[in-house]
Amino acid sequence: MEKLTVIKVGGKIVEEKESLKSLLNLFSKVEGKKVLVHGGGRSATKVAADLGIESKMVNGRRITDLETLKVVTMVYAGLVNKDIVASLQGQGINALGLTGADMNVILSEKRPVKDIDYGYVGDVKKVNIDILSDLINSGVVPVMAPITHDGKGSLLNTNADTIAGETAKALAEKFDVTLIYCFEKKGVLMDENDDNSVIPHITPESFIKLLKDEVVKGGMIPKLENAFGALDCGVKEVIITEAGELGNNSGTVITI
Amino acid sequence: MEKLTVIKVGGKIVEEKESLKSLLNLFSKVEGKKVLVHGGGRSATKVAADLGIESKMVNGRRITDLETLKVVTMVYAGLVNKDIVASLQGQGINALGLTGADMNVILSEKRPVKDIDYGYVGDVKKVNIDILSDLINSGVVPVMAPITHDGKGSLLNTNADTIAGETAKALAEKFDVTLIYCFEKKGVLMDENDDNSVIPHITPESFIKLLKDEVVKGGMIPKLENAFGALDCGVKEVIITEAGELGNNSGTVITI
Repeated sequence: MEKLTVIKVGGKIVEEKESLKSLLNLFSKVEGKKVLVHGGGRSATKVAADLGIESKMVNGRRITDLETLKVVTMVYAGLVNKDIVASLQGQGINALGLTGADMNVILSEKRPVKDIDYGYVGDVKKVNIDILSDLINSGVVPVMAPITHDGKGSLLNTNADTIAGETAKALAEKFDVTLIYCFEKKGVLMDENDDNSVIPHITPESFIKLLKDEVVKGGMIPKLENAFGALDCGVKEVIITEAGELGNNSGTVITI
Repeated sequence: MEKLTVIKVGGKIVEEKESLKSLLNLFSKVEGKKVLVHGGGRSATKVAADLGIESKMVNGRRITDLETLKVVTMVYAGLVNKDIVASLQGQGINALGLTGADMNVILSEKRPVKDIDYGYVGDVKKVNIDILSDLINSGVVPVMAPITHDGKGSLLNTNADTIAGETAKALAEKFDVTLIYCFEKKGVLMDENDDNSVIPHITPESFIKLLKDEVVKGGMIPKLENAFGALDCGVKEVIITEAGELGNNSGTVITI
């Protein structure tokens, strides 16, 4: 199978002109077929604040009422997505911006209300593998915004890490997929105070030990659990690295 | 050649939930291959105002500084476009939202400054006929936002009527194109105070007479000139009608 790299970038790197430019420059050098998945939360929070809408976060997730859905749709699918697409086109990359609604590439369902009502937040139900792989095989580079739809006319806000993971898993049926999560640190660190203590390789066995020794904790636990989930579904390797290190073969490589 | 209908809708009809719903219901019933081009100026003006950005219009065109470009990108390519795409998907139509930057479908150039500096406004240079027709032939319904790009990394604001006209002209090479401009009136009126005085058919000869008799005046003159321009470039017919009359074979039909 042909190699495909799914790269997720988020945080301020995609939202500031200069850092975005150098990121896209690195992205353009990634060889072979590729998909870019982006976030945009900081810009959404800023635009919401400028519009007088308060951003409510629970466990790092945005509570998405109807007004907030409008803001994230504007910011993720409009501002951030099209800025990336135009920049990539300027570098000769045939980018196509997509939400899950476009050509029905990602169908989701509104998260059921249990303890918390997240509002218009969607959990991914189905990634349209054929349409995405046809696009990729025709030389298009999909640029995916973290917005999906329910197939009944409503857009839904969906976490960008989830979009990247689900897209990588689905495309593993057709490609040899490497999933790269760009992150503000150089990888999973042995010592959280030492940026150069990157753990080069994590396997299920070493993960158990890292958990036991409390080297891996907090928000890194779900990140690694997601990585193993993707690997269990056919993704070949997951890399956690810093955006500035894209293409440098650095960071933490996770395999099973 | 196969029939293709390019429909341009603008104004408040695409920006209010209920009217958009009935418009898209009519649009979904239009038979055969089709393209939707939308505006969104009212929402852009509102969001700009809410963000404290003043909208400056000259001859009905928006002066687009960098902050305004961000607003129109958010509103046209995000809010309005994705709302339409998700609604059409909800009706079983395989919609794909596009700006000119996506797959480089419309390349434009920044309007040169003569008397007026319009800012980040783009005049269409090239419509990518092959990509659009491949999409259309594969069953996709393109939903085009009035944003283009310069191929060098910048987005540009482009009038939706122009996008519709240029797209129709380009696609006339591959399809038998009908171009429909939806409008707040039922068509070109014989008496501007009588909404039921629609002129059913205008030809180049009758247009000269209508101009001479001052039946057609003001903003309707460039609209009709654009229509004749499209017909001169191979578009089969242009229809000016009210959005609510879509599919009713009413309105003013312009042919050469």
